[in-house]
Amino acid sequence: MHEELKQKVCTANIKLQRRQLAVYDYGCVSGIDRRAGIIAIKPAGASDETLTPDKIVLLDMAGSVVEGTLPAPAQAATHLELYRSFASIGGICHTHSQYATMWAQAGSEIPCLGTTAADYFYGFVPVTDRMPKAEIETDYQQNIAKAIVRRFEKLDHSQMPAVLVASHGAFTWATSIAKAVENAVILELTAKMAFGTVLLNNRAKPLPLELLQKHFIDNNPKNSEAAL
Amino acid sequence: MHEELKQKVCTANIKLQRRQLAVYDYGCVSGIDRRAGIIAIKPAGASDETLTPDKIVLLDMAGSVVEGTLPAPAQAATHLELYRSFASIGGICHTHSQYATMWAQAGSEIPCLGTTAADYFYGFVPVTDRMPKAEIETDYQQNIAKAIVRRFEKLDHSQMPAVLVASHGAFTWATSIAKAVENAVILELTAKMAFGTVLLNNRAKPLPLELLQKHFIDNNPKNSEAAL
Amino acid sequence: MHEELKQKVCTANIKLQRRQLAVYDYGCVSGIDRRAGIIAIKPAGASDETLTPDKIVLLDMAGSVVEGTLPAPAQAATHLELYRSFASIGGICHTHSQYATMWAQAGSEIPCLGTTAADYFYGFVPVTDRMPKAEIETDYQQNIAKAIVRRFEKLDHSQMPAVLVASHGAFTWATSIAKAVENAVILELTAKMAFGTVLLNNRAKPLPLELLQKHFIDNNPKNSEAAL
Amino acid sequence: MHEELKQKVCTANIKLQRRQLAVYDYGCVSGIDRRAGIIAIKPAGASDETLTPDKIVLLDMAGSVVEGTLPAPAQAATHLELYRSFASIGGICHTHSQYATMWAQAGSEIPCLGTTAADYFYGFVPVTDRMPKAEIETDYQQNIAKAIVRRFEKLDHSQMPAVLVASHGAFTWATSIAKAVENAVILELTAKMAFGTVLLNNRAKPLPLELLQKHFIDNNPKNSEAAL
Repeated sequence: MHEELKQKVCTANIKLQRRQLAVYDYGCVSGIDRRAGIIAIKPAGASDETLTPDKIVLLDMAGSVVEGTLPAPAQAATHLELYRSFASIGGICHTHSQYATMWAQAGSEIPCLGTTAADYFYGFVPVTDRMPKAEIETDYQQNIAKAIVRRFEKLDHSQMPAVLVASHGAFTWATSIAKAVENAVILELTAKMAFGTVLLNNRAKPLPLELLQKHFIDNNPKNSEAAL
Repeated sequence: MHEELKQKVCTANIKLQRRQLAVYDYGCVSGIDRRAGIIAIKPAGASDETLTPDKIVLLDMAGSVVEGTLPAPAQAATHLELYRSFASIGGICHTHSQYATMWAQAGSEIPCLGTTAADYFYGFVPVTDRMPKAEIETDYQQNIAKAIVRRFEKLDHSQMPAVLVASHGAFTWATSIAKAVENAVILELTAKMAFGTVLLNNRAKPLPLELLQKHFIDNNPKNSEAAL
Repeated sequence: MHEELKQKVCTANIKLQRRQLAVYDYGCVSGIDRRAGIIAIKPAGASDETLTPDKIVLLDMAGSVVEGTLPAPAQAATHLELYRSFASIGGICHTHSQYATMWAQAGSEIPCLGTTAADYFYGFVPVTDRMPKAEIETDYQQNIAKAIVRRFEKLDHSQMPAVLVASHGAFTWATSIAKAVENAVILELTAKMAFGTVLLNNRAKPLPLELLQKHFIDNNPKNSEAAL
Repeated sequence: MHEELKQKVCTANIKLQRRQLAVYDYGCVSGIDRRAGIIAIKPAGASDETLTPDKIVLLDMAGSVVEGTLPAPAQAATHLELYRSFASIGGICHTHSQYATMWAQAGSEIPCLGTTAADYFYGFVPVTDRMPKAEIETDYQQNIAKAIVRRFEKLDHSQMPAVLVASHGAFTWATSIAKAVENAVILELTAKMAFGTVLLNNRAKPLPLELLQKHFIDNNPKNSEAAL
């Protein structure tokens, strides 16, 4: 069941591989059918271009496996919590893509230095706080999502569909599964270009607000200046 | 109609993809038939190696679509204005290629540090000023071209067939469509090698004038020392 | 004889090529059959994807060739000494992979800055001391292993399956041959991401102990917190 | 005539393309038959993987075309002068490979920081002085070789088969054509790893003499310690 959902999640995971954003198991895309309350996610250890839809694991909103012979990945708990917290999203992508992870490891948000970033992300890409010891020791995967949600207390996840998890990697999301992967591709490009920019000029100026708004609104038609 | 023009623009856009200078829609080549007053440009959202000549959009010099079922990209207004201002050019290429964009985001011209650059660009590659708010809010795409033209007030666009748009990306041009893409390839190479050079030695010396002239003239036979 | 061992060593060496961790002869994977006292290693000068199992050289624990028409590589002496010293390992991989070698040449251990590294390496990746002149002049290849073993006097090679040899390159190992290559892939990724991280923030904090433990234990189930 | 020579030069130029050391016309390998006094070189403008031996140009030692329908490249004068000055070499390779060119543009020799470099290059890779104006204006291509030869006044070209031409690019050579390309591949790797090393640690120590000697002699059997 949910063949279309499984197909989309499968295709998205393969795209992540082809874009070289995933090494071994470090890359996982999921999707949700909110009406049915079903999440589809790549199983643990099936990380290559031979992935087929029948290997995709289906979970209910409590995290129980509904369909699938392969084990759900531990990070399913993170995806589930994000789907619960960010009601408008339809797909989530987790990577340890190289340049995004450099910023995550540096503990630094990615400044918005160019229009490429502005087309996708409304401002700097935030980084979570380091997680307290207790949150690491118990329910770690779910707590990663909680750290993300805390970081978004004053941010709008539809205007900033990406986050860096400190010392870890990146999550992106979108209303659709394919768009979540696209956001991961642009996040990595943004991270690489920002990396080079600050090496050239560590006082490079963030995009002025009017240019940020112009690009973000034009490329995300549902937003208007008033909404920002 | 204009089959040859469409074919050349199609081929050039595919080359841009293959050279990995374009991600998603961030890469667009156009060409002009000046006698007919017709511009051919890649449509919005058709950014992959399956592009075919019949998808290329034809515009008149006022920007009206003359032929094509797909929408012209917003940046057509920039290309049009550049064709109007730089009378000798036959092709234009816009990219957000990674290293060129790092310099654009740093707000820094690219110094001419080696003979590779000197073969193509007569001196440093300029960067535009940041655009004033009013120019962003109205006729933005056309104003990008105007910012470029202002930057070239004292520069010769036939001797410097490339520019960085501050906080944005790069434009290159040439008398032919294919050569505009070649200029984009060399701009990216120039940007990458200059990036590494200044990291190694932030006081690296620009090419001496005699070496710059020697290379530029030899590789651009229409120029002579007197003309420079 | 030892067809399965030769097959595994052959496959692992080809993987190293495909992952672009080896240039020319700078990449060599070996494996051991401890019950038989036989080591299988890629011969000198057979460094491409056309490698076949029949070219793999078999050595006894004293380093004498037991089977094979091609010469054993000089570095076989290093592998042999490591197999003798680290009793639990089943495969060894030597590379001059680019980012790992940068750290080796810098004479610096790789700090543990992210969870990718923590999944595989329990803490910083160590670098050997420079070898004294006498050890270079006599039994050089064997002494490389001895320098590694000295560096591990207070380290557990099962918790840290990687080392940088100062001014040289990297060795990784594991209980299996395939896993030794996987460790080399992750070492290079770790080295690249740590490189970028310290360029962004040269005071980036190492992973807190609880996060390091969480990841390392979860991904290396034989370890427990008590054992660390 | 000289079919074998043309075949080898053709193969070597294609390898240079495949190793991504050449962009457009920035990469040229030549070979010499010293007994016949004939040099074979890639023609100008034939820079891709479809190169065939019949396109290779044959020159005599005075630089006159002996065979070939395509034009000899301007840089043939540089190759000729190098063949005349360095009597033992059989092949020459010129590139603007990215990392080697960064060092050339920085005006800095490449320090010998690791054993990879030491296997091929006996010490730092030298950089020429900037050429005086008169040498640029007349017989420029030949004078590039003269600048190289001057730089080697106190260096042995058989122990250092590579040089950076300031603000320009790299030349490598060897007794054989294939080995000249191999030297170009290792030069680029050396340049990249040295680049990263000095960014990590700008006081990284050059290889101690005993380690340099050990590697260089082992990998270049014709050399002995006495000869160095």
